[in-house]
Amino acid sequence: MPEKQYLFTPGPTPVPPQVLAAMAEPIVHHRSPDFVPVYERVLARLREVCRTETDVLLFTASGTGAFESAVANLVTPGEPHLVVAAGNFGERWISMTRAYGAEVDELRYAWGETPDPDDLRARLREREAKAVWLVQSETSTGVVADVKALAAAAKEAGTIVVVDAVSSLGAVPCETDAWGLDVVVSGSQKALMTPPGLGLAAVSEAAFEARGDAPRFYFDWERTRKAQRKLDAPFTPPVSLVAGLDVALGLLLEEGLENAFERHVRLGRATRAGAKALGLELFSPDEDRSAVVTAIRAPEGVESDAIVKGLRDRFGITIANGQGDLKGKVFRIGHIGWFDVFDITTALSALELVLVDLGADVERGAATTAALEAFESTTAAA
Amino acid sequence: MPEKQYLFTPGPTPVPPQVLAAMAEPIVHHRSPDFVPVYERVLARLREVCRTETDVLLFTASGTGAFESAVANLVTPGEPHLVVAAGNFGERWISMTRAYGAEVDELRYAWGETPDPDDLRARLREREAKAVWLVQSETSTGVVADVKALAAAAKEAGTIVVVDAVSSLGAVPCETDAWGLDVVVSGSQKALMTPPGLGLAAVSEAAFEARGDAPRFYFDWERTRKAQRKLDAPFTPPVSLVAGLDVALGLLLEEGLENAFERHVRLGRATRAGAKALGLELFSPDEDRSAVVTAIRAPEGVESDAIVKGLRDRFGITIANGQGDLKGKVFRIGHIGWFDVFDITTALSALELVLVDLGADVERGAATTAALEAFESTTAAA
Repeated sequence: MPEKQYLFTPGPTPVPPQVLAAMAEPIVHHRSPDFVPVYERVLARLREVCRTETDVLLFTASGTGAFESAVANLVTPGEPHLVVAAGNFGERWISMTRAYGAEVDELRYAWGETPDPDDLRARLREREAKAVWLVQSETSTGVVADVKALAAAAKEAGTIVVVDAVSSLGAVPCETDAWGLDVVVSGSQKALMTPPGLGLAAVSEAAFEARGDAPRFYFDWERTRKAQRKLDAPFTPPVSLVAGLDVALGLLLEEGLENAFERHVRLGRATRAGAKALGLELFSPDEDRSAVVTAIRAPEGVESDAIVKGLRDRFGITIANGQGDLKGKVFRIGHIGWFDVFDITTALSALELVLVDLGADVERGAATTAALEAFESTTAAA
Repeated sequence: MPEKQYLFTPGPTPVPPQVLAAMAEPIVHHRSPDFVPVYERVLARLREVCRTETDVLLFTASGTGAFESAVANLVTPGEPHLVVAAGNFGERWISMTRAYGAEVDELRYAWGETPDPDDLRARLREREAKAVWLVQSETSTGVVADVKALAAAAKEAGTIVVVDAVSSLGAVPCETDAWGLDVVVSGSQKALMTPPGLGLAAVSEAAFEARGDAPRFYFDWERTRKAQRKLDAPFTPPVSLVAGLDVALGLLLEEGLENAFERHVRLGRATRAGAKALGLELFSPDEDRSAVVTAIRAPEGVESDAIVKGLRDRFGITIANGQGDLKGKVFRIGHIGWFDVFDITTALSALELVLVDLGADVERGAATTAALEAFESTTAAA
């Protein structure tokens, strides 16, 4: 029998078979009645998922491309901007805003730390910024920032707030309008349960009005917004991915966003409880908000590379190594989107066996029970 | 029985079922051994299709996005550039190079005219240009330009040559290295028989060395080339589309590029012969090079909108209206990629019935025979 494969990386994430089936439908023309109603429904569903009344602009691009739409539209060379960075993706947005000529101030934390709204408030008192650039879920560390509080601090200083919600949208609450988020960027391949290839940006009227003069065409908000408002796309959209996203968003909204958020909280609890029951040390915070990806330290004497390779070679399970300086030191289990608790117990069971193979000193037989109990629990771990 | 649907637009184009099946495969991680060999094979096959030894950079984007990579990497504000435009896409590249601050000279033709290498040579004697921007197949008019001769004229003046081969790559010859084309841009959704969502740019060393200083990140050639040379992608690639493209390129190369080019020539002959047998007037040139899309004038007293709508409502056939000023006046039948002669006879048969419905004065019963004979013919129409 061919080996069964498991994808537990924090993106791309597994895609439900209904979505895959939609991807295999015959190609339709993007300006035909076969596609326009699908496009309209996807745009409406994205507004619902982003909890916004504003336009959600859809780009044929990865999440990074959709994020670049914010940079290309908001940055004019020489303007002050503030990027809050506590991991790989925060670093990326520093590089990107700099590439567009922004005078970038960095509110930088060690990887794994959680940004503090008071630090942001203090920094904005020292130096003004046109926009504050935040990461909601820092996929490299497993930290989910308190975007509501960070955005409130930025709003006090009157800045535009841009949020990288690539790995968080649909997994943890992201209240675009209620929290005053001007731009929320995400991608199809995380909690939206669709293959990679679609990026999106919810753009408030204030952000739209704050457009700068960096050169842009493909990622130009005005061109895309104008077309979308006529239910057109400015350039040929990836019709198969849009059809897949339509099905996936239907599944997500059928579950209900609040239920999906609660499920992710419990998936996070289950993963952390299982890891601790194995005797492992968490790298990501042991708190309910950290519901997207769990980063775990490799035990003494074991490189995380060996864990990643062991899971893959012995069980066909793909997880993620640490990024940057964390490579070899931590490993990451994603639980974003189409996941239930049995995916977590599968990952933990296999992890236990691989750690034993590697000679690590782990507690046998306790992880899956701890995970199941934590998943059922209605309160956070102590 | 549900109506059978036919897609005869010049992009997106029909996708073979084998490719659709690959799109529905479970998601794999882009840095895993499940994907890296597919990625390596796709990159090698793209070099083969582009007939180049240089890097073919792959972007999660439409063809326009891949074209923007050329603009963002080559244009520095204030530099002189020359765009050759004879239709909708040439106009788009004028707008895009201007958006990036180029001092754009336009060698402009009426829509439907074929750019003349001598005009280009003369223009470049009058005014220098860092790069000449060419459209190989102008999808809006059906004209396929003589890129070999145009590139030779540009090379005499020592410019970089950029070619929009979005609707032509894989359908008509495009000899990147032999013709000295510095940049060849294309997309997945035309003759490459894959859903939209992937753009590509073959980038010569000379073009790479001529990079300018416009701001860019997502479309930065250096970042993408560096990652691809390590068989990585700089940002999460659309793994499903890449898997589909792998299958599609396999089909194309199995047929053989020369055979595919010959098939497209004969598809063009068949379409033109059928249209003429109906008594219709061609808009696109009646010549073998025009092998990608056939633009046909709506007959006296009939709006092309009614033809497009009639084909759709009565037969589930999607063709394209004219673009810009040609809307209502011409209609376009694409024969790009996964087409054989029976697609053409289907389109012509339905067209005949719809034109009769619309009260047009057409010749009955001659079109399909004329098309079949022209397809079999080894020489061009007189």
